[in-house]
Amino acid sequence: MRFDIDKLGLITYLCGMKKVVLIGSGNVATHLGKAFIDSGIKVLQVWSRSYENASFLAKELKCNASADIKNIIPDADAYIFSVKDDVLEEVVRMFPYKDKFLIHTAGSISIDLLKDYSSKYGVFYPLQTFSKQKEVDFTSVPILIEASSPTLLNKLSGLATSISEHVLPASSEQRKYLHISAVFSCNFTNYMYSLAESLLEENGLSFDLVRPLIKETAEKALLHSPKDVQTGPAVRKDMKIVNSHLDLLDSQPDVKALYAVLSERIIKDL
Amino acid sequence: MRFDIDKLGLITYLCGMKKVVLIGSGNVATHLGKAFIDSGIKVLQVWSRSYENASFLAKELKCNASADIKNIIPDADAYIFSVKDDVLEEVVRMFPYKDKFLIHTAGSISIDLLKDYSSKYGVFYPLQTFSKQKEVDFTSVPILIEASSPTLLNKLSGLATSISEHVLPASSEQRKYLHISAVFSCNFTNYMYSLAESLLEENGLSFDLVRPLIKETAEKALLHSPKDVQTGPAVRKDMKIVNSHLDLLDSQPDVKALYAVLSERIIKDL
Repeated sequence: MRFDIDKLGLITYLCGMKKVVLIGSGNVATHLGKAFIDSGIKVLQVWSRSYENASFLAKELKCNASADIKNIIPDADAYIFSVKDDVLEEVVRMFPYKDKFLIHTAGSISIDLLKDYSSKYGVFYPLQTFSKQKEVDFTSVPILIEASSPTLLNKLSGLATSISEHVLPASSEQRKYLHISAVFSCNFTNYMYSLAESLLEENGLSFDLVRPLIKETAEKALLHSPKDVQTGPAVRKDMKIVNSHLDLLDSQPDVKALYAVLSERIIKDL
Repeated sequence: MRFDIDKLGLITYLCGMKKVVLIGSGNVATHLGKAFIDSGIKVLQVWSRSYENASFLAKELKCNASADIKNIIPDADAYIFSVKDDVLEEVVRMFPYKDKFLIHTAGSISIDLLKDYSSKYGVFYPLQTFSKQKEVDFTSVPILIEASSPTLLNKLSGLATSISEHVLPASSEQRKYLHISAVFSCNFTNYMYSLAESLLEENGLSFDLVRPLIKETAEKALLHSPKDVQTGPAVRKDMKIVNSHLDLLDSQPDVKALYAVLSERIIKDL
């Protein structure tokens, strides 16, 4: 099933979703809520397992927080569940109404999780890393959508295109692969940065020294295929340098093992 | 031994090195050569094991190429060896003159490699990834320097500060740790990107979908400690998601093994 997103964008006004309730108050809910109100979508209410956190976010979004999930406002166009993956089903189960439009925002959870709780459901997955420390420009964030019917997919597309220029339908399986790709591109990449930071600190050197390199490496990947711009001793098959690095990492067997396996993979793959 | 770089910067005019010869014509030599001429440092000549490549670079730098290393111009202030690590010593051995100022640009090779070939030697290590596809703004590239005497370190500092605002003395051992940190920050990071690219392509999805994420992840590391901004299922200890990703990677045992070991390390370290 494929949809023409340009056409879907035009349908926004016809099937506009203008009022949502946010279930959750973490990083995704926070950034999403801000993007919604900036685009004229009303966030009617926030509920979260922590009333304190819900109130904090509600204040930022200029709405109210519900202390009890049973008292959630019943007339929103959609209820967006943006909670930790491992409590999502538990929270959906607590939701008090039947046949509301339920949406989750998780990369790796199938749309089917929602089907026992409503006949109208969907997924709205913003493919970005969100943290308290940094604002995000939502217009460039890809949003992957999936819904229980073409009509609801249209509605979801309208909602998504109101905050992002990159809206795309994706199946639950595609979304999972996207999430794994995001883990490599972001989470594991950040872990590489943190290993560099530790190595530098342990040797009296500042992490600032590699920051220009981090910037340049990312910028290159924005313009080129990473396979075409791989650099370093492993891809040059310069085993003298690879081995001298491994020797220097003798006192840190875990880091050494990672260096070895990643170099081996680069030599084999690229 | 520590030097005050601000003071060293002022000495540039007093002990200025204005004429260099480049030995090598690869990415580092090319970007370095361009930065030199942009800053008024004369590149007198280029020599490389491939005369064709040397001529190509010489043309770009508006100088001549030497076909035979024996005919290299003898009156440069410094001879900068920027060749592949594994042929560096072989090339230095071919150099025809005694007691010229010899400099190498390798991250992981000790300054001592040069001591049998001259009494004046040093290291000039620009900590950046260079590729043919992309220009580099050298002013922000950290340059790590080391020399056989304080006087030569001054000279080297003058040369480095003429093209970069971030010049720092570093011992051969520190430089090696810097190089390993660069491998993690750049080479292994780029490999993470390339794994994401493969996963996406195999599932009919565009690498463009994770490019905003790559940009955001790098930008975050420019402002914060990577340890403080780690996100993803592993750091949340969300084993349900980690395991579901591992299941999905069953058909790619190498990628699966990497996903497993990196998740394990993040869970343990952060």
